[in-house]
Amino acid sequence: MTEVQNTPVKVKVRLTENNYGKADVHVFKVNRERPRHEIKDITVRVAMTGDFEAAHVQGDNTGLLATDTVRNTIYGLAKEGFGGSIERFGQELVAHFVKTGPRVTGAFAEITEHLWERISANGQGHDHSFVRQMPKRTARVEGDGQTFKVTSGIENLYLLKTTQSGWEGYVLDERFTTLPETSDRVMATYVTAKWEYLGDDADHDDVWQRVYGQLQQTFTDHYSPSLQSTLYLLGEAVLSRCPEISRIWFQMPNKHHLKYNLERFGLENNNEIFHVDPEPFGLMEGWVERA
Amino acid sequence: MTEVQNTPVKVKVRLTENNYGKADVHVFKVNRERPRHEIKDITVRVAMTGDFEAAHVQGDNTGLLATDTVRNTIYGLAKEGFGGSIERFGQELVAHFVKTGPRVTGAFAEITEHLWERISANGQGHDHSFVRQMPKRTARVEGDGQTFKVTSGIENLYLLKTTQSGWEGYVLDERFTTLPETSDRVMATYVTAKWEYLGDDADHDDVWQRVYGQLQQTFTDHYSPSLQSTLYLLGEAVLSRCPEISRIWFQMPNKHHLKYNLERFGLENNNEIFHVDPEPFGLMEGWVERA
Amino acid sequence: MTEVQNTPVKVKVRLTENNYGKADVHVFKVNRERPRHEIKDITVRVAMTGDFEAAHVQGDNTGLLATDTVRNTIYGLAKEGFGGSIERFGQELVAHFVKTGPRVTGAFAEITEHLWERISANGQGHDHSFVRQMPKRTARVEGDGQTFKVTSGIENLYLLKTTQSGWEGYVLDERFTTLPETSDRVMATYVTAKWEYLGDDADHDDVWQRVYGQLQQTFTDHYSPSLQSTLYLLGEAVLSRCPEISRIWFQMPNKHHLKYNLERFGLENNNEIFHVDPEPFGLMEGWVERA
Amino acid sequence: MTEVQNTPVKVKVRLTENNYGKADVHVFKVNRERPRHEIKDITVRVAMTGDFEAAHVQGDNTGLLATDTVRNTIYGLAKEGFGGSIERFGQELVAHFVKTGPRVTGAFAEITEHLWERISANGQGHDHSFVRQMPKRTARVEGDGQTFKVTSGIENLYLLKTTQSGWEGYVLDERFTTLPETSDRVMATYVTAKWEYLGDDADHDDVWQRVYGQLQQTFTDHYSPSLQSTLYLLGEAVLSRCPEISRIWFQMPNKHHLKYNLERFGLENNNEIFHVDPEPFGLMEGWVERA
Repeated sequence: MTEVQNTPVKVKVRLTENNYGKADVHVFKVNRERPRHEIKDITVRVAMTGDFEAAHVQGDNTGLLATDTVRNTIYGLAKEGFGGSIERFGQELVAHFVKTGPRVTGAFAEITEHLWERISANGQGHDHSFVRQMPKRTARVEGDGQTFKVTSGIENLYLLKTTQSGWEGYVLDERFTTLPETSDRVMATYVTAKWEYLGDDADHDDVWQRVYGQLQQTFTDHYSPSLQSTLYLLGEAVLSRCPEISRIWFQMPNKHHLKYNLERFGLENNNEIFHVDPEPFGLMEGWVERA
Repeated sequence: MTEVQNTPVKVKVRLTENNYGKADVHVFKVNRERPRHEIKDITVRVAMTGDFEAAHVQGDNTGLLATDTVRNTIYGLAKEGFGGSIERFGQELVAHFVKTGPRVTGAFAEITEHLWERISANGQGHDHSFVRQMPKRTARVEGDGQTFKVTSGIENLYLLKTTQSGWEGYVLDERFTTLPETSDRVMATYVTAKWEYLGDDADHDDVWQRVYGQLQQTFTDHYSPSLQSTLYLLGEAVLSRCPEISRIWFQMPNKHHLKYNLERFGLENNNEIFHVDPEPFGLMEGWVERA
Repeated sequence: MTEVQNTPVKVKVRLTENNYGKADVHVFKVNRERPRHEIKDITVRVAMTGDFEAAHVQGDNTGLLATDTVRNTIYGLAKEGFGGSIERFGQELVAHFVKTGPRVTGAFAEITEHLWERISANGQGHDHSFVRQMPKRTARVEGDGQTFKVTSGIENLYLLKTTQSGWEGYVLDERFTTLPETSDRVMATYVTAKWEYLGDDADHDDVWQRVYGQLQQTFTDHYSPSLQSTLYLLGEAVLSRCPEISRIWFQMPNKHHLKYNLERFGLENNNEIFHVDPEPFGLMEGWVERA
Repeated sequence: MTEVQNTPVKVKVRLTENNYGKADVHVFKVNRERPRHEIKDITVRVAMTGDFEAAHVQGDNTGLLATDTVRNTIYGLAKEGFGGSIERFGQELVAHFVKTGPRVTGAFAEITEHLWERISANGQGHDHSFVRQMPKRTARVEGDGQTFKVTSGIENLYLLKTTQSGWEGYVLDERFTTLPETSDRVMATYVTAKWEYLGDDADHDDVWQRVYGQLQQTFTDHYSPSLQSTLYLLGEAVLSRCPEISRIWFQMPNKHHLKYNLERFGLENNNEIFHVDPEPFGLMEGWVERA
């Protein structure tokens, strides 16, 4: 039906921006030095940039690593290094591929860390048993062999408040506006955030814990006139809490909890019964940075 | 390509077991009686059984509810009732539809509860701000207007231990066996469980908390020779902890953490570096009941 | 928070119905005997039942296969057999595990086949290049070593009609009914079907093609007063087309296409503009069998 | 556990790049002018940029549209316009929001079109019955009120060939390389592509059909020494086939089909039996443009 039958005459083309590597490499590392085991559970993507024209244009693979080799390398370096944060491991990966990869001039690593908490048994966190948590920690490191650009982040942080949120004063005279104003609604959002650093020496683990705590704390502490306002307040609070961070970005969907119309059935609905609408959703994105 | 062109001569057929209703009805309820709000976040399926032959065979809808009505009813009853557990709400739903649904002789309700924890702010759980947790609570209630069969459950409970688990002594002389034995491995599983009750008066909320705690506690407290053995021990512990429960079923995938072969690269791997294999996975299912 | 601290006194329990095996084994087979390659792309689950009490209760694995062995076996048997349909391969798998598995008295295999069509190039289907299709073919075979129960099916068949469907005459005097009647709506459903056979000698591939074609043909050929009526007509047509089939089951969600209220904006909506609601959805299930 | 208790002293911050709008708006449009209905099934995201500082910083919503209004507008404009391609509808949306949105200086629309084929009944495509297809068509339009930047694309195009693909001559002396070379393998990839135009007057529907057909045709017509080489050839072919296109980008995962080691069981595997590995996967990205 959509078939193209004759072969077109070839025109002159060229390869421009490109990269290759391996994605979804799932590495689990256990530190067994002490009876209290430490674990890291990460999914890694590594990609390289450089002069790979021969492979693309002439089919000459002499300048390419197998992506299988990229995978093996990630596991090997996880053994030899990866003593600290995913941000540091990302730097180890990028440095390695820029140094050893043929015709490689740059690389980036994207790491998602799956978080586990110690199972609480007999009143304390267990030495070697864990239960998976919902939020994820992310890092992206990009480098050219000389310097690194490090971005950290959080995903899957689903927050909700049952009051202290409203939506009023917006443009009402628009032809397509039908939504009534409210000074009391349920606000829910699935926070994705990423942030950059002022210097190279941040303690990424400690910063992450502070951001994670502060986002939750700030979410509770104000009446929110809009998700945009909350986005800004979250950014302000994180930058105030964490002097290491230069700027922070949020993507915050408004997971609408719509008051269900019960009046049709002779029932009151004093902000008690809501339909959780899976889609569509309002979507807000923004950077907050130091002034 | 798979087209069937002529119309076949009709043969005599009949409708047998059937049901209809509404699924994925997402209800959020806030109890605002006190400043410390209580919330319920549930997804509901309701289905009815009965004599619906006229609708199917003659296209006569006089004996059918609109599934839209089913939806409205779930929201209405969530307002009027739903003061306690999802198991009790399931009973309210089933009783309603058996009583009021035309030609309805039975019904079942399947409810998944999404769990939220109070955000910890200023040292205590916040009154009206919450953060989503990973595990889910489930209930299924089936009834004919006289009695109810109640099943409770848990999903998305992802547990892992880094030691105190092995896999030895299994059948080795089989042609297709290549896996080496081990007395120390990572064991990880995504527990799905459901259980039934001895009587009608269980405190379902309290039982659920005890099961949830006991599953984690028992997961930590033994050397596991197989996932099957752990399944049995989990069942035994839950039945010991909860006299209200008559039997419990588990589905436990073995989320394989495979020791990565680093020896090829001149590196040791003392159970430190693993590949987390997304598929395939061993899958164990079983019921444990009172003897 | 949900911690259980003391260990409960053990009560007497026993293992009842149980099974174990391997799931999500993804096998791809190419038949290269002729230049025109034939392919099979399947995901397999195999589970065994039998006397596995020693493994569960005493931690004695001598009667267990490694599920890794189950995986190897599936690949090995795919090489040695699997010359025909997934239903036949399911029988080969079940027969093998019942015969060779220690303490095994029964087994079942669940197979999902991912469908590919030859890429149309230069006016005809290509010999060795394929493009993935959306529907999936399924089979389930269960057996005890003597006989097999075979169920075939189809999934992911998403059908839609823009007219010749309505919903009228249903119960209107119910308190919670608000939906208006209509004799012209969009009807869309995501068909899941499974069927059983009268005898043991059906040509499963040919039957599947006839069912697949007939479901589409019948979906087009009538005014539908309800999804229930269409479910019945689909069943009647399949049983008429395929004398090999004894009965067929459908699960058909009503993927609601809701007429968007444009009158608020001074616009007519003559069944032109719809919101596709992701959830909730009406859900109909039913068996149609020979009378 | 990750709680932050004291409130940090606020530092000075500012809002920089930001946008807001509505996502996952699922619109279905039927053109009923003739008995042969035409349908459009799309999911839309619209986002606006501009001066929204007051809303973020002062909680002053007077310059904001409700995202609910954005949704209503999308449905309203789908009724009044949307007579052609998703690229044209994206332009209508962007033009509308830049013109009418308060403090709006730019906007973008991202549209995914779900594709349906007419059901083949009685030897021809049916007038009003459809079956969903797997690939998706995409468009992104960005504009400032004066000009539009249009990008078109395709997703979910899963292609596979059983021969005429190899992987040889890559870097072998790297410490972490273990993969053997092959001149005959299964190659499978899930193509995501997007392209830009030379001028403003392209027939986007016709271009899309040509790209869709050419990608499949070119995939079949060569021995592939690497996925990178195929990526380049696909780009060259599309640019040769479609003079309207200035450049095209591909993301192509290498969905590895790994030859299963059957020799362990005394079985040959002449490229017949493969394990389809869900992850990790090689991932190639690149732009091909006119020289």
